[in-house]
Amino acid sequence: MDSQQSTNYLIHLECADCGATVSAETIQHLCPACGGILLARYDLARIQAEVPRERIASRLWSDGLWRYAELLPLDDPADPMEHVTLGEGATPLLALPWLSAELGVDAWLKDEGLNPTGSFKARGAAVGVTRAKRLGARTIALPTAGNAGAAWAAYGARAGLPVVVAMPRDAPALTQREVSLYGARLHLVDGLISDAGKWIAQGVQAEGWYDASTFKEPYRLEGKKTMGYELAEQFGWRPPDVILYPTGGGVGLIGFWKAFQEMAALGWLAEGAKPPRLVVVQAAGCAPVVRAWEAQAEATEFWQGAQTVAAGLRVPGPLAGRLILRVLRETQGTALAIEDDDLRRALGELGRHGLWVCPEGAALLPAVRRLRNEGWLREGERVVLLNTGSGLVYPDVESLNE
Amino acid sequence: MDSQQSTNYLIHLECADCGATVSAETIQHLCPACGGILLARYDLARIQAEVPRERIASRLWSDGLWRYAELLPLDDPADPMEHVTLGEGATPLLALPWLSAELGVDAWLKDEGLNPTGSFKARGAAVGVTRAKRLGARTIALPTAGNAGAAWAAYGARAGLPVVVAMPRDAPALTQREVSLYGARLHLVDGLISDAGKWIAQGVQAEGWYDASTFKEPYRLEGKKTMGYELAEQFGWRPPDVILYPTGGGVGLIGFWKAFQEMAALGWLAEGAKPPRLVVVQAAGCAPVVRAWEAQAEATEFWQGAQTVAAGLRVPGPLAGRLILRVLRETQGTALAIEDDDLRRALGELGRHGLWVCPEGAALLPAVRRLRNEGWLREGERVVLLNTGSGLVYPDVESLNE
Repeated sequence: MDSQQSTNYLIHLECADCGATVSAETIQHLCPACGGILLARYDLARIQAEVPRERIASRLWSDGLWRYAELLPLDDPADPMEHVTLGEGATPLLALPWLSAELGVDAWLKDEGLNPTGSFKARGAAVGVTRAKRLGARTIALPTAGNAGAAWAAYGARAGLPVVVAMPRDAPALTQREVSLYGARLHLVDGLISDAGKWIAQGVQAEGWYDASTFKEPYRLEGKKTMGYELAEQFGWRPPDVILYPTGGGVGLIGFWKAFQEMAALGWLAEGAKPPRLVVVQAAGCAPVVRAWEAQAEATEFWQGAQTVAAGLRVPGPLAGRLILRVLRETQGTALAIEDDDLRRALGELGRHGLWVCPEGAALLPAVRRLRNEGWLREGERVVLLNTGSGLVYPDVESLNE
Repeated sequence: MDSQQSTNYLIHLECADCGATVSAETIQHLCPACGGILLARYDLARIQAEVPRERIASRLWSDGLWRYAELLPLDDPADPMEHVTLGEGATPLLALPWLSAELGVDAWLKDEGLNPTGSFKARGAAVGVTRAKRLGARTIALPTAGNAGAAWAAYGARAGLPVVVAMPRDAPALTQREVSLYGARLHLVDGLISDAGKWIAQGVQAEGWYDASTFKEPYRLEGKKTMGYELAEQFGWRPPDVILYPTGGGVGLIGFWKAFQEMAALGWLAEGAKPPRLVVVQAAGCAPVVRAWEAQAEATEFWQGAQTVAAGLRVPGPLAGRLILRVLRETQGTALAIEDDDLRRALGELGRHGLWVCPEGAALLPAVRRLRNEGWLREGERVVLLNTGSGLVYPDVESLNE
């Protein structure tokens, strides 16, 4: 496409640390100047002038997260042929009347389990694979603690691009099988996601693979941020007071922050609306962000001996640790850790209310109770539990009955 | 609610066999006159006058299948508090360019795996439980070959209604566990869904359970028919030429037939549009409809020794056999059976295109090829494969590689 005729609103990538800008028209990974995380920047003033939020609202659910096309890294937001899609996004928001009554708040659950491959990872993979294909990537490679591998393998297969996935040998057996079913190359490592990452880095170096590791490409984040746009739209463009987010690599958390920043700049939020306070929820057996937050540190430290049944939270050294902590400060958020037994109990309790969530999502129930009991969450506030995946993805994690 | 103030468009139930009408305001099961299947009838003339299809189109995806509220058994279609919902419906429709190119048709897959509990059964359970609760049911009971049990258990839990589920001991282990997780009572029988049905019938008689067996209450069908409304809307109110449907109990098939009848009466379909030809796809190891269709019989006969890995197709004596055959005749459809090895091969092939479908859905791939090769499906026709559930629900069914 002739770039002069482009309706593309993506202008460049900007380093979250040093502010350097680089082209979005070629393959980029981390900031070439300082190694920081690159964020996609759009011409928000032009979008504000040209795209009323009502245009978004008039689009059919079938477009899923592509309903927000102008805020996504596309050459032509109006061309659906550009999307690599399996029907991701447009997930439900469920009222939790029993929890609202118990805590005296207005509690909701956004259910990301209703995505292709059963988790919110589909959002990042859909946009990430779409952009990687457009930029000429030939083989996509990533390490994963579980779900992301299944998602990228599925979208790679849909796009006709080879995918290489490395994961810990103790990652869920179902996910391992799923990655193979999608025809991706699966490599198992004895160790954690960080060890899988080292193996991928070697292949990136030696084979020229496209590195799709968390935050080592800027577009997974763009997919995840659509959760924020959807939440705003579902609540009539008035953000909730608080969002609880089970945090491994932190892409969704940073996605919410970025989405609400963009919507504020676009003037899409309701009169007087404030961005939500974001809450990091981690497993007590792997809580690098919580430890750093409590120590008022600027960066996370590698968590030794990470252990939890919630595979998606087994991320001992998140690359975005520094940015996650900044997001918590900027949004007046907080961070807390939950014991595995408590999340397994919550899994059973949510089941008896008709909700089979993933273990990561289950951790949010004890977390919201603790925040309310401590008074951090105030009476009458609207709070969203962001359930990242379906219980179907984790058939081996047993719930504990109370 | 005062019925004089009601905006309820549901007028009565009508027997599909003898045409008798009965009240929709009390609990009803089969036709009291002849034992036939009861269909919900609406005041379509009043809906046509009062509800433009554009009003439906303007509703947010978050309402899921309740976007078609006026065509559902609700006291007040405008009152969302009446819905028992887990976010069902509004599922994606995916283009299959590789299959279209191979067959010279316009092939799509509607992915019902992106429903709560991972299958299209959620639609029937959402509407069925909503109506059962409204009519005063106290305990919901049903036999199931698998998925329906999980769905009704989940929606019962969401509604706060006890649920009793009976299923064959060889039903998928995951589904058995899921039913228990939702707090339902699980009863296992040595035998088939028909034997589970007998056990339920005893409890209905002795304990006064609300019988939610397939077609023994009229509202599961109302939930399933929303697949037809969605398809029409997704294609700009122009129905596809052909829909392939993996048929166990046949609720979805009859739901499509009913939905396109209603839309035709409402004047919602595009100018000159014809209702789709509906195709029954069964497993070769349990194909009572196919056998009856080929024999040009009026009714199905009980299939002895039913066996297939596709649990949802293991329905040897569908209650609606007669109506299914009538629907095939009326829509100029057809019926065919697929060997398990072929559907397992298709499972692997679809996986390599990024789609992990259920075994029932996988059967549609060899079916559409056969229909095209035989010329029944004509060049350039638009065909939809209705995938009823996610592969995640059937982790034990292995694909065969070619």
